[in-house]
Amino acid sequence: MNSGIEELEEKGRAAKAASRRMAYVSTEVKNRALHNISSDLLTKKGEILAANQIDCKEAEASGMSAVMLDRLMLDASRLESIAQDVLAVAALPDPVGEVLDMRTLPNGLQIGKKRVPLGVIGAIYESRPNVTIDISSLCLKSGNTVILRGGREAIHSNSALVKVVQEAAARAGVPDGAVQFIENNDRDLVGHLISMTSIIDLIVPRGGANLIRFVKEKATVPVVAGGIGVCHTYVDRSADIDKAVAIAFNAKVQRPTVCNALDTLLVHADVAERYLLLIAAEWAKAGVEMHCDERAMAILKPSSSLKLVPANDEDWGKEFLALVAAVKIVDSLDEALEHIERYGSGHSEAIITEEYGAAMRFLNEVDAACVYVNASTRFTDGGQFGLGAEVGISTQKMHARGPFGLKELTSYKWIIFGSGQVRP
Amino acid sequence: MNSGIEELEEKGRAAKAASRRMAYVSTEVKNRALHNISSDLLTKKGEILAANQIDCKEAEASGMSAVMLDRLMLDASRLESIAQDVLAVAALPDPVGEVLDMRTLPNGLQIGKKRVPLGVIGAIYESRPNVTIDISSLCLKSGNTVILRGGREAIHSNSALVKVVQEAAARAGVPDGAVQFIENNDRDLVGHLISMTSIIDLIVPRGGANLIRFVKEKATVPVVAGGIGVCHTYVDRSADIDKAVAIAFNAKVQRPTVCNALDTLLVHADVAERYLLLIAAEWAKAGVEMHCDERAMAILKPSSSLKLVPANDEDWGKEFLALVAAVKIVDSLDEALEHIERYGSGHSEAIITEEYGAAMRFLNEVDAACVYVNASTRFTDGGQFGLGAEVGISTQKMHARGPFGLKELTSYKWIIFGSGQVRP
Repeated sequence: MNSGIEELEEKGRAAKAASRRMAYVSTEVKNRALHNISSDLLTKKGEILAANQIDCKEAEASGMSAVMLDRLMLDASRLESIAQDVLAVAALPDPVGEVLDMRTLPNGLQIGKKRVPLGVIGAIYESRPNVTIDISSLCLKSGNTVILRGGREAIHSNSALVKVVQEAAARAGVPDGAVQFIENNDRDLVGHLISMTSIIDLIVPRGGANLIRFVKEKATVPVVAGGIGVCHTYVDRSADIDKAVAIAFNAKVQRPTVCNALDTLLVHADVAERYLLLIAAEWAKAGVEMHCDERAMAILKPSSSLKLVPANDEDWGKEFLALVAAVKIVDSLDEALEHIERYGSGHSEAIITEEYGAAMRFLNEVDAACVYVNASTRFTDGGQFGLGAEVGISTQKMHARGPFGLKELTSYKWIIFGSGQVRP
Repeated sequence: MNSGIEELEEKGRAAKAASRRMAYVSTEVKNRALHNISSDLLTKKGEILAANQIDCKEAEASGMSAVMLDRLMLDASRLESIAQDVLAVAALPDPVGEVLDMRTLPNGLQIGKKRVPLGVIGAIYESRPNVTIDISSLCLKSGNTVILRGGREAIHSNSALVKVVQEAAARAGVPDGAVQFIENNDRDLVGHLISMTSIIDLIVPRGGANLIRFVKEKATVPVVAGGIGVCHTYVDRSADIDKAVAIAFNAKVQRPTVCNALDTLLVHADVAERYLLLIAAEWAKAGVEMHCDERAMAILKPSSSLKLVPANDEDWGKEFLALVAAVKIVDSLDEALEHIERYGSGHSEAIITEEYGAAMRFLNEVDAACVYVNASTRFTDGGQFGLGAEVGISTQKMHARGPFGLKELTSYKWIIFGSGQVRP
């Protein structure tokens, strides 16, 4: 076994050992740790920003793009905002220890489910150093221990941040070993990490599509990988056209680079002419490029000021993450449902309609984490849903679907209070 | 691609297509299907038993053991009991459609989680033909479609039973294709089935340890595999000795071949002499063989009528599934907790104690699906817990832990009722 893997296994065992105690650390201790982290981020600003400077200089020298450099960069104001986020996690209710469905059986056994941490979380992420603090806070609050594996480009920043977290947590009384950090940059370690089934309970990948795909394909440990959102908004024949324009505009333009942004606009033929001219004019102001099917093209082509491209097969089911939308005219709700079933990624889907039956059918029949009537898909977010922070959006059906927050970082155990009962 | 795999893929697509409609089939239709199945099992008794006769004769000719033959065999009374079980599933509440946590956000969005079926369940099982009916009923009731892969030794019985299920379900209005059966005996198909990630949402293996291990190791589709239960009962220094004898006797003897039966008895040194002589005498009457550590052996050896074997390292953490128990003396609750952490399989663990603090520590610190104070681990069962039928006991933490019943065969989707909201 190479020394990197040996070290990783050792850190894994330490995280696992700590997780047994971490499971019943009081909310008080956990919140104290989060407050310590938040204040230490500010008092140790100098060291953190100096470490980040090293990463940024190395990255710049190696020719990193301006966008990536911006993601990597920390400054005083970003650090303050990270420190604020930690306090926000401290303010969330502790999910651990909640007892559900407690009841007394006819034989006198008292039985219920008690919420417990999942155990050990493995986090694999890229560039943005704030993820180190973000994931550590969520894991600590939910009573999990964590093994962090950040990107090599942020190694100095992450090392400095982890040191802050570890010291602040220890001072609050969190068990030693609760936050582990893999400094070794060897790429093979990621492959090993995601196969440590006897140690790790859940892997959370945060990063680009390549990282997410790699982890999903290779991991034998359970994974929560959101990431891919191919989101449709369907404008029904009975839609309120003004609402439909406002919603599709918001869903595409408000933040085009994220997973809950609109990718494909489906429009019922009965309202296509009226609606498309309106939304196209609005989108044009924001610089949206429209990839149109033939019928939509026929309606829009005369307006020469628009950025129009004939849609090809690859536009359906594509996550654009940019100011680009695919546009298709459908002849019925059924055709819209079929399109969404075929091309959707099970993330967020919306119908704009004033017809009760259409709304109910859409809610019933669309199989996705979040199904909307008359609202923007951009709301799919732990904060917006009132769950507090999130580690991602789950598009899978097992365990948790949609925003994956503190509660979703827990499991439960059945607890049974007896007085001598035996099974007849 | 070989023709078996092609056929399997086709059945998969049919099950997947049916699952979209199955998701919102009414409880009325699903219950009607279950009642039809129950009555058809009796009216078509002749065909079913004749098919089973063929399997039994072939199995006998091939030298199948008497135990296995007994599992395979159906007769009128077994069929009646299977038909009764289907009615019991019909009588359970429908988990699908339940709406949880519905609330109105400050912006007026009404948001909640609606319980939906997982989708397509793949079931892989051995010998007992009743599993065909059992799993089909649970999947139908929970709105899932199912792909069944029974053992080759029961192929005629299963074919006859599936025909009954399919006809009875269709008559009730269940979508075509909801129950698929793989007749092809090619073993490679199992490997393919458990990797059909785009079709199947959950694999349920039911059978021996080899099957379960194979599926858990190879599957890329999520798996719920219970099966392995290494269950400890710890008799604390403050235990009520009579209760402790009754509970350990029940946990070991009432049904020794199942996963929630006692495997290892841990006894606090302070009560070891008094307790061990009593439980050993009771267990001896039932023919229990005790694999004792040195200290337990020293106490029990003088009683020559007992079946005693010196314990070796393999006895700790072993699931005996027989009238055998490992016995160890410990000096403290801590030592018991450490032993359970090291050797337990996360299934069911019990403490027998009259000391409040010991009970609470055990409940908090033991990481298992079901943790008992002063009761027999034999209660770990969907029926006993009041959940109705179960497809197995989950020893994993993701999704569901412990008895895996109808509710655990579901997921949820977020439904959002808007009136034009966009994200600021």
